[in-house]
Amino acid sequence: MSITLDQLPARLPGTAFRTREEFADRHPGFHPENLSADLMALPGTTAEVSALLALCHRGGIPVVTQGGRTGLSGGATTTPGQLIVDTYRMNRIESIDPLGGTAIVQCGVTLAALESAAGEHGLSAGIDLSARDSATLGGMAATNAGGIEAFRNGVMRHRILGLEAVLPDGSVYSHLRRVTKANEGPDIGQLFIGSEGTLGVITRLSLSLLPGDPPGVTALAVFPDAARAVSGYAALRDHPDVQLLSAEAMWPDYVIAVAGGLSVNLPVEVRPGSEQLPVLLEAAAESWERTDSFEGALMALYESGAMADVVIAKSERERGELWRIREDSFVVDDLWPHGFWYDVSVPLDCLAKYVDGLFGRVRAVSPALGTYLIAHLGDGNIHATITSGKSVPELRGQVDAAVYDGLDAVGGSFSAEHGIGTDKRESLLGLSSPVRYRVMQEVKSLLDPKGIMNPGKVI
Amino acid sequence: MSITLDQLPARLPGTAFRTREEFADRHPGFHPENLSADLMALPGTTAEVSALLALCHRGGIPVVTQGGRTGLSGGATTTPGQLIVDTYRMNRIESIDPLGGTAIVQCGVTLAALESAAGEHGLSAGIDLSARDSATLGGMAATNAGGIEAFRNGVMRHRILGLEAVLPDGSVYSHLRRVTKANEGPDIGQLFIGSEGTLGVITRLSLSLLPGDPPGVTALAVFPDAARAVSGYAALRDHPDVQLLSAEAMWPDYVIAVAGGLSVNLPVEVRPGSEQLPVLLEAAAESWERTDSFEGALMALYESGAMADVVIAKSERERGELWRIREDSFVVDDLWPHGFWYDVSVPLDCLAKYVDGLFGRVRAVSPALGTYLIAHLGDGNIHATITSGKSVPELRGQVDAAVYDGLDAVGGSFSAEHGIGTDKRESLLGLSSPVRYRVMQEVKSLLDPKGIMNPGKVI
Repeated sequence: MSITLDQLPARLPGTAFRTREEFADRHPGFHPENLSADLMALPGTTAEVSALLALCHRGGIPVVTQGGRTGLSGGATTTPGQLIVDTYRMNRIESIDPLGGTAIVQCGVTLAALESAAGEHGLSAGIDLSARDSATLGGMAATNAGGIEAFRNGVMRHRILGLEAVLPDGSVYSHLRRVTKANEGPDIGQLFIGSEGTLGVITRLSLSLLPGDPPGVTALAVFPDAARAVSGYAALRDHPDVQLLSAEAMWPDYVIAVAGGLSVNLPVEVRPGSEQLPVLLEAAAESWERTDSFEGALMALYESGAMADVVIAKSERERGELWRIREDSFVVDDLWPHGFWYDVSVPLDCLAKYVDGLFGRVRAVSPALGTYLIAHLGDGNIHATITSGKSVPELRGQVDAAVYDGLDAVGGSFSAEHGIGTDKRESLLGLSSPVRYRVMQEVKSLLDPKGIMNPGKVI
Repeated sequence: MSITLDQLPARLPGTAFRTREEFADRHPGFHPENLSADLMALPGTTAEVSALLALCHRGGIPVVTQGGRTGLSGGATTTPGQLIVDTYRMNRIESIDPLGGTAIVQCGVTLAALESAAGEHGLSAGIDLSARDSATLGGMAATNAGGIEAFRNGVMRHRILGLEAVLPDGSVYSHLRRVTKANEGPDIGQLFIGSEGTLGVITRLSLSLLPGDPPGVTALAVFPDAARAVSGYAALRDHPDVQLLSAEAMWPDYVIAVAGGLSVNLPVEVRPGSEQLPVLLEAAAESWERTDSFEGALMALYESGAMADVVIAKSERERGELWRIREDSFVVDDLWPHGFWYDVSVPLDCLAKYVDGLFGRVRAVSPALGTYLIAHLGDGNIHATITSGKSVPELRGQVDAAVYDGLDAVGGSFSAEHGIGTDKRESLLGLSSPVRYRVMQEVKSLLDPKGIMNPGKVI
């Protein structure tokens, strides 16, 4: 006996459901099509998710799992006829062990909620991103989230000790180890990390926590060019007396546009269109008042000519303004809509040359296009917005080619931290080696033979 | 047209082969059955491995990949009729990028060779184990090696940015990213890490390097009991002025036996059979001469009563003697042969209680059995030798049960860092959830449908 979407609520009386009319007024999150499905389930437990997927599997009902709906690549978009599994109610922090620095959480816990609970023990999730208040840990696991601390703490995969996931047929894969070392055969759980909901629903996570960050001091440094920014960053990273907490690069056209759009005075001089590279640097201070060792290291770079200018934030307000310039990147989209967005990784020894080439390649596509760049400098993760302010879909292919050119050859990535979703599906097909793509497809068919999990995404 | 083992050398004239007679005089490594195969191939490139596996796949020829042959779980044992793929000649460090802290290596490079090359740039592989001179990075990836730095740097999986592997049919999976962030669909490469040669041959690795360790100072501390050892460890780990490099626990019966066997004078008093827990602690020093902050932290623990005794090594010789007691654990096997070996992980908040229970459970199996324990304390990884000096295979099942009791319930692992191999195959079957075991089998069948890769191991 098969089953259809509309029969699910009656079959699962213990699970909360919302019809399209009931969730129509919710904010769809980042993508307008996130809430275009016909039905939403709000399970509270793994058992509920299991019962739900078993029925969907039987009925061939397509399922899209959603956490904070903050994904930027269209990985959670829906269409009529689909079921949304919203993890909102699976928001329990089950345990925290301060001694071992571990936590067990349900998938719907937000990053901010865990950060707050861990903070009570002087600990941190060890990962941070600007969607912290909405992004769920389950979603961050499913997309292998990165963020601004990845250069020192790794990405989400490195923070996960073990996980539980419901497979598309409803069976429960559970391997919630609370230890770093657990070699018990091939680690199937790794497949779910970064699979963007295409292989199952991650329901619980065992996470490794880290000591909370010490007080920090924030500076805005202007390097003469990208090459010297990279080597300056490396010098600070490797400096025995400096504990670098953040290194966020903002190219001149970006920083001038966003500071202007926010009406924030830039505390350093940045020449438009120049080769300069301003970098927001944050390091541990001896205390909020004592910042000697970081300041000393910055001054040494400045005096050696490796740095053109630098200012240190003297108050929380000044610090907040610097971070706003970095985080309010939507200002670029407001000023010049219809931009193409990219999220690439470049090895540090190739970063300056890549960016240099990128500006030229984009100009060659069309002189009307502007290239607005920011980067998590430590891991070479560049976010690019390429736009003339006008809708030019016919240039998409050429701009893609300009951005992706040479990345594979140097060991970079066309898809760093935002995932594939729907937006980069074609690029994944075009840029993956045939063997790799084939094995991904085979694994997908193995775990989800009916193709009900997040259809049309990733692979 | 099929192909047989003895036809391989003629079919692949560019690849070096050794017959059983030719490799009979080699040291078999840790397990006497490692070199019981009939033929050994010594490929030098990925292309050679690919051609080799394509033929083996066609002929259904079983393949066992071997690196340093230092594995402790029988993961590389062979039988007549099998082909050994020895990675010895794939020993090229292809590149090191000091700026980004990355290296690309062939699989046969030893840990010591990479450590030496990275050291020239002030960098380190970020992983260490006592087999460092023989263990290959390919083998360490295939077994997801752990070791003494895992509590601060993670295990081998965390050091791998990307990898290349030859699949059982000879096709080459290549995803040698040199960046931390690369989300390009489900990460198939993760499957090879920890699969112990059952899914393919890892041929090249892109690794993340770390700054080399600063000079260290070594202490032997005696805690009144395991609970206070764990909290003392956590206090040092979280101390803002202490950078802990090692924390190796050695229970009284072990430390007394090994120090005695090595004729090393223990510099602290340890009472046999007591609840005390001696821990070898190493931390960064300001310099080789200045060790103030670590000594201060140790003294604070001592004065608070959390520590019963502590001595600091005053010379390289004293330091070397402390480490010999930790690393020359074979002394226990010499004194009391026929021991059962275990390698488990226990979350720190459960470690003291687990060990307490373990001693009792083993005594209940037989009062003649001694329990000799050491632990990488930071990650709760305990190595146990349980022995009366006599061969008692009939007790194996009961001792297994005594050691594994309760581990799963607290989120620990029966198989921490040495892998499954042949030795823990039955335990894997008995202790894995049916869903997890089934999916592992399905993935194995998908990637290696003929079952030629390391047959009889793991799953």
